[in-house]
Amino acid sequence: MLGCGTVGGALVQLIDRRRDAVGGGVGLRLDVTRIAVRRPELDRGLPVDPSVFTSDTAAVAVADDVDIVVELIGGIEPARELVLAALAAGKPVITGNKDLLASHGPELYAAADEAGVDLLFEAAVAGAIPILRPLRESLLGEDIGQILGIVNGTTNYMLSKMTSDGATYDEVFAEADALGYLEADPTLDVGGKDAASKVALMATLAFGRAVRSSDVHTEGITEITAADIEHARRLGYVIKLLGVADVDDSGAVGARVHPALVPLDHPLAGVNGSFNAVFVHGGAAGELMFYGRGAGGDPTASAVLGDVIDAALDLRAGVHRPVPSGSPAKIRPPEDVESAFYIDLEVHDAPGVLADVAGIFGRHGVSIRSMEQTPEQPTAGPQNGSQAQARLMFVTHRAAERDMQATLAELKSSPTVVGVTSVLRVVST
Amino acid sequence: MLGCGTVGGALVQLIDRRRDAVGGGVGLRLDVTRIAVRRPELDRGLPVDPSVFTSDTAAVAVADDVDIVVELIGGIEPARELVLAALAAGKPVITGNKDLLASHGPELYAAADEAGVDLLFEAAVAGAIPILRPLRESLLGEDIGQILGIVNGTTNYMLSKMTSDGATYDEVFAEADALGYLEADPTLDVGGKDAASKVALMATLAFGRAVRSSDVHTEGITEITAADIEHARRLGYVIKLLGVADVDDSGAVGARVHPALVPLDHPLAGVNGSFNAVFVHGGAAGELMFYGRGAGGDPTASAVLGDVIDAALDLRAGVHRPVPSGSPAKIRPPEDVESAFYIDLEVHDAPGVLADVAGIFGRHGVSIRSMEQTPEQPTAGPQNGSQAQARLMFVTHRAAERDMQATLAELKSSPTVVGVTSVLRVVST
Repeated sequence: MLGCGTVGGALVQLIDRRRDAVGGGVGLRLDVTRIAVRRPELDRGLPVDPSVFTSDTAAVAVADDVDIVVELIGGIEPARELVLAALAAGKPVITGNKDLLASHGPELYAAADEAGVDLLFEAAVAGAIPILRPLRESLLGEDIGQILGIVNGTTNYMLSKMTSDGATYDEVFAEADALGYLEADPTLDVGGKDAASKVALMATLAFGRAVRSSDVHTEGITEITAADIEHARRLGYVIKLLGVADVDDSGAVGARVHPALVPLDHPLAGVNGSFNAVFVHGGAAGELMFYGRGAGGDPTASAVLGDVIDAALDLRAGVHRPVPSGSPAKIRPPEDVESAFYIDLEVHDAPGVLADVAGIFGRHGVSIRSMEQTPEQPTAGPQNGSQAQARLMFVTHRAAERDMQATLAELKSSPTVVGVTSVLRVVST
Repeated sequence: MLGCGTVGGALVQLIDRRRDAVGGGVGLRLDVTRIAVRRPELDRGLPVDPSVFTSDTAAVAVADDVDIVVELIGGIEPARELVLAALAAGKPVITGNKDLLASHGPELYAAADEAGVDLLFEAAVAGAIPILRPLRESLLGEDIGQILGIVNGTTNYMLSKMTSDGATYDEVFAEADALGYLEADPTLDVGGKDAASKVALMATLAFGRAVRSSDVHTEGITEITAADIEHARRLGYVIKLLGVADVDDSGAVGARVHPALVPLDHPLAGVNGSFNAVFVHGGAAGELMFYGRGAGGDPTASAVLGDVIDAALDLRAGVHRPVPSGSPAKIRPPEDVESAFYIDLEVHDAPGVLADVAGIFGRHGVSIRSMEQTPEQPTAGPQNGSQAQARLMFVTHRAAERDMQATLAELKSSPTVVGVTSVLRVVST
């Protein structure tokens, strides 16, 4: 083991608890022989001989008494070098390091394949939920069209709280911070970067072409207001931060992370709190969803242990499962990606306004699915004067990002429009 | 392929569509070389050379140009003999035949292990949902405590309709019949036997000991009334037909199928229509749920193709994955199994009745969690006279079946109780 934090500690205890069951079930003996940590002298109270702790990280990755390496240090370096060294020494590697994989995956997959050993990383996406293995194995015969995932527990907790309690973004941000849910750099969570890494990994396995996190168009939840959530609820939706990956007929992959309106009767709408879920549209299988805990020491250790057992069985059988990452994926330009949209506009409340606004949508080929109008109290301000205003909420049919952006540009410059309050994607069913 | 009905036809088409993707992905060439059917001369309009159809079923199972056998005839014989013959000839077998596996599983698992080939059956439980593989592989390191499944789409469709439309059991039965959703013997669906076979297979893989369908205590949905559903809704529950399997500290397995009240905020409560879902409680992973289409040609064919690819990869690598069925499971007697219960009583509306009834629960050690009382119009009849009646609805804490049965016997013989209208299990959270 490289590293022994929360997940590492949970893993050592889980291996201890499940040793007999694994031995009896598939005849494997699991022993933790070496653990590389910065301070080996600390008493961690773990069920393992203290002599296994060492500070010589590089030696553990290639040691003779190590059959399988579990990398739990995180970050890019030295994790990348250690993983490459272990693979080159013929040792299967298990990691939950989504940042490393989403940025340097192809190099690592190729190194594992060349060495003829497994590189497994179920823990990197959605904690304990078995999602990567089904994508890689059960659904190999499946023509996967789209993946929608709630894969960041912190933002799902925040949005769930805003929905259930009517809290503001700032309130739930402060609460998540106080609970220790936020990463040291909170933009990884609320800016959507953590989710983007996970989308890149899922897309790589689902579509068989390497997708990197930099290929994922990413928007976070920082602009979501209590009003957005309330308006969405009135229209029959909840707002979730979704990771989306799909592939078109030409094989081009679209990958993105953004908040979206999810219809209340969609299975993802009921995924609340810190739970994660991944929804898969398969050509033959139809709709599938995988749900569970996306974080935490025990759930993540459970995913790591599943991979360790797999790697051990493969090692015994002398086989390995290459990641079907192939060549880099062709990435669809973000402006070609299609979504349905929710648009919340403030307009001057005068005859003919709706016709004006509808005309703008129509000129850019954006078709309107539904509209709701509510009168608004005029807000003071030089821009508005005392003229009456109204709020128009549109849900469109699917439209290309490019057409939507052109529509928004014309709306913003129209004299009838006071302002574009919100623009959000909508999951269409 | 043995048999070519709805699933077989869908499989032939799926293999045709996915041949290039599978070839490019993992380098396998999939060809359908022989299909055993009763009438080989029929034109089935499938993308396969007509010469592959034959009526010589026994020959297909052992033919030299057959690497993998897919059994889709169903029923016990001749499926059992054909599967054994194929395994003995060293050919991996894929089947979706839950009845065969739930009654003769151990014999078949042992035959596959002896021959050193795979016997895979993902399609036997919950159609396209990858649930058996996660139980067998991803969660091998996991101490699974309980499995709760909605695994019969027909009864879930019926109960969902009763819930959404307020329809009666007879109305939804007639509708399911008209839609062709019911098996030729409808008691397989509404009596819970189909679900029992699936519970047996899931329990076998989750707990590593052979559980047969005859080990599963089975109650169907035929007694569920529109009133039960309405009362459950008022208390915050929906009624689902659940397959339940759990294991106690002594390793004894409890397996059962019965309708149950599921709290509205439980992920299984939102699984409606013909969808299936399996909820797993793991010691480290926590709560996991797998959701998708439980039936239909394409979803089932998708599960079969996933298994075919697995079996082909294993065959190429010269390995196989034994079913960890071990010896027969120790089965907990049904009267030892614990549940929370919902009890709906009609009582004479007189002072002291609640104390009487509560005293009966108490004497048998059954603890009451909540109670609702509603006055009822007196019903005509010699038994009741014109005395006023009330309805008492209890939800208990967990109690052993034995204690609940003793409570019910005393309630029924009590002069204050007019009748026990309903007794249902409750999923506790």
